[in-house]
Amino acid sequence: MLAFAVRNHALAAVRKPLPRLRKGWALVRVRLAGICNTDVEILRGYHAFRGTPGHEFVGEVVDVRGVSSGTKARWIGRRVVGEINIGCAALGFRPVCRFCHGGMKTHCARRKVLGIVAHDGAFAEYLALPIENLHAVPDGVSDARAVFTEPLAAACEILTQIPARKFRRAAVVGDGKLAQLVARVLHSAGLRVVLFGKHANKLALARRVGIETRRVRGGGNAFPRAPEGYPLVVEATGSASGLALAAQITEPRGTLVLKSTFHGAAPVEMWPIVVKEINLLGSRCGPFDRALELLRAGEIDPVPLISRTFPLAEAKAAMKFAQRRGVMKVLLQAE
Amino acid sequence: MLAFAVRNHALAAVRKPLPRLRKGWALVRVRLAGICNTDVEILRGYHAFRGTPGHEFVGEVVDVRGVSSGTKARWIGRRVVGEINIGCAALGFRPVCRFCHGGMKTHCARRKVLGIVAHDGAFAEYLALPIENLHAVPDGVSDARAVFTEPLAAACEILTQIPARKFRRAAVVGDGKLAQLVARVLHSAGLRVVLFGKHANKLALARRVGIETRRVRGGGNAFPRAPEGYPLVVEATGSASGLALAAQITEPRGTLVLKSTFHGAAPVEMWPIVVKEINLLGSRCGPFDRALELLRAGEIDPVPLISRTFPLAEAKAAMKFAQRRGVMKVLLQAE
Repeated sequence: MLAFAVRNHALAAVRKPLPRLRKGWALVRVRLAGICNTDVEILRGYHAFRGTPGHEFVGEVVDVRGVSSGTKARWIGRRVVGEINIGCAALGFRPVCRFCHGGMKTHCARRKVLGIVAHDGAFAEYLALPIENLHAVPDGVSDARAVFTEPLAAACEILTQIPARKFRRAAVVGDGKLAQLVARVLHSAGLRVVLFGKHANKLALARRVGIETRRVRGGGNAFPRAPEGYPLVVEATGSASGLALAAQITEPRGTLVLKSTFHGAAPVEMWPIVVKEINLLGSRCGPFDRALELLRAGEIDPVPLISRTFPLAEAKAAMKFAQRRGVMKVLLQAE
Repeated sequence: MLAFAVRNHALAAVRKPLPRLRKGWALVRVRLAGICNTDVEILRGYHAFRGTPGHEFVGEVVDVRGVSSGTKARWIGRRVVGEINIGCAALGFRPVCRFCHGGMKTHCARRKVLGIVAHDGAFAEYLALPIENLHAVPDGVSDARAVFTEPLAAACEILTQIPARKFRRAAVVGDGKLAQLVARVLHSAGLRVVLFGKHANKLALARRVGIETRRVRGGGNAFPRAPEGYPLVVEATGSASGLALAAQITEPRGTLVLKSTFHGAAPVEMWPIVVKEINLLGSRCGPFDRALELLRAGEIDPVPLISRTFPLAEAKAAMKFAQRRGVMKVLLQAE
C-alpha cells in the first residue's frame, strides 16, 4: 500500500505491506485524514517517530481478526473514526495496568499512539486499530465533518475535567484549529467565549458562529499585555507567550486549561500561577462519543475550518501547505 | 525606632518614626521575626520593594486606633501573629472589591502585603496591621513556635485547596523551610509523605518526625531522574529543576501543588503537564487559625527548624547567614 513516513524531517512516500492484525483488531481503509500541528512537531523530531504519521481520520473497516461472526458482521463495511491511544490490554500485555483497567488507556505507560508513538498512522491507504478504539460514524455526518472527531474530542475533554457551565465566561488564547474547536465546544456548552488571536481571517471564522474575538498584536510570538478577568482560560497556542497571556488574563483562583503541548523547555514565568493560586489543568485526548454527538446534532460544523484537501499522493505538498501562515485544516483524501 | 530597609540589595539599619495608625489598625511591638526566602528575593529586587522587609513575626499589641474601648481592652497587651495581606477594605477603598467582599483579601488587586508590597514589615521594632489581620497566640505556644505561624499557614493552604486525605500518599520536592512544614502538615493529616531533597542534614530533620526521605543528587540545581508514582506532589524548591522533578514523579491525572514562587522566566517543560493531564495548583498564603491550632496541639513542632537567632540590630548579618548552604530558619529577636 501507499504510505508516508518521516524521513529527514519531511514526509516521504513509501510502499508498505498491509498492517498485520492482532486478535480483536480491525483493518481500516482510510478515506480522509487530517493534518494536525502535532504532525508538524513529529517531522521536527518529536517522539523520534519514524513511522507513518496521522492520527485524525475517517475510514471504512475492511477486515477484523479473531472475533465472533456477529462482531465481524457489525464492523465490516462500517464507516469509523478511531481513538488513538492503544492501551496495554489491546497490545497483549498481562496483567493489564491499573490505568487501562480503570478505563484510562490514554494514560497507560505502555501505550502506543496512532501516528505518534510506535504505531503507524493515517497518512496511508490503510491503518490498524483495536476494535475497542473504533466508533461508528452516524450516517448524517459527512466524511469532511467526521475527520474532525479526534481534535473535537480533545476539545470536549475540557468538559469532562471541569464543570464548564459553572464558569459562564471563558477566554481561549489562540485562533488555530484546536483553539477554534475549543471555543466552539465551550460556546455550545452555553459559555460566553472570547477568542484571543493574531489572524484577522481566523478570528472572523469564530465571529461567524457567535464567538467574541480580541485581536492581539505583537512582534514574533509576543502577545501584548491585556486586562485580567476570566474565571476560565484555555491556552491553545502551544507557545510560551500564549501561556504568559493566558496566565495573565486568568482571574485569581481561576482555571487555566493547557490544551496544546510545546516540546522542549520554554521560558515560562510560573509565579503568577502561585500568586493568583491558579488551577492549571493539562488536557489531552477526549471522548469520541461526545464529539460525534456534537457533529451529528449539527451543534458544531467544522467544515469552514478546512483550508484545502489534497490527494493522499500529494501528502508531502499538503504538509508544506499546512505550515503556511493563515492556513487552517488541511486534509488528505484517498484516491 | 530601629528598622531595616532594602538598600543596594542588602539590609541597612535606618531610624524611622513609629508607623501611623488608620482607624481599625493596631501597632505591634515585634518580639521575634523570621527570615524567609522571599526576603532574599526582595533583596534581589523582587517587587522593587524598598521598605522594611519581614512578614513572619510574633509581637505584642501596644496601641489600636478608632475602635471601641472593649475592642481596645481585648487587644492591648495581647501576643499576636498577623496575616500579611492588607485588603482594599482595610486600606480605606470604597467600594470594596469582590475578592475582599468574599473574604479573599489575599487576592485583592489593590492589596498591600506586609514587608513585601508597599507596606513596612517586621524587621523593625514596630509594625502596623489592621486588627482584622491579627490572631491572638494561645498561651501555651512559645514565641519561637508562634513565629512560624505564617509559613505554617501557607503550608496548610494546601488542605483548603484539595481533599488531601483522599490522596493517602504524597511527595514533597525540596528540603528547605517551607518544604519541611508542608511535609509535616501532610504527615499530620495522615498521608504517607516522602520528602525529596539534596541535603543530608535537612532530610534527617524530616526523618526524625516520621517522614520518609529520598536523597537526590546532581550538580548545581539539577535533580536527577526518579521513578513516577505519586498522586499528590508538592513543589517547594522554587526552582525550574525542582518543578521538572515534581512533574516527572506526578502520576497521570495527579495533582501537583506549586508552593514556591521563582521570579523571572525559567526554562520549563510544560508538555508533561498536558500529556499526563496533571492538575497543577498554585498555592500561596493560608489559614492562620489552622496553623495556630497545629502549634497549640503540639501536632507540629517547628523549633528544630531554627538554625540561629540574632538580635534585631544584627539583621544584616542574620540575612547573610540565612543564605548560607544548609541553614534553615533564622530569627531576629527584639532586644
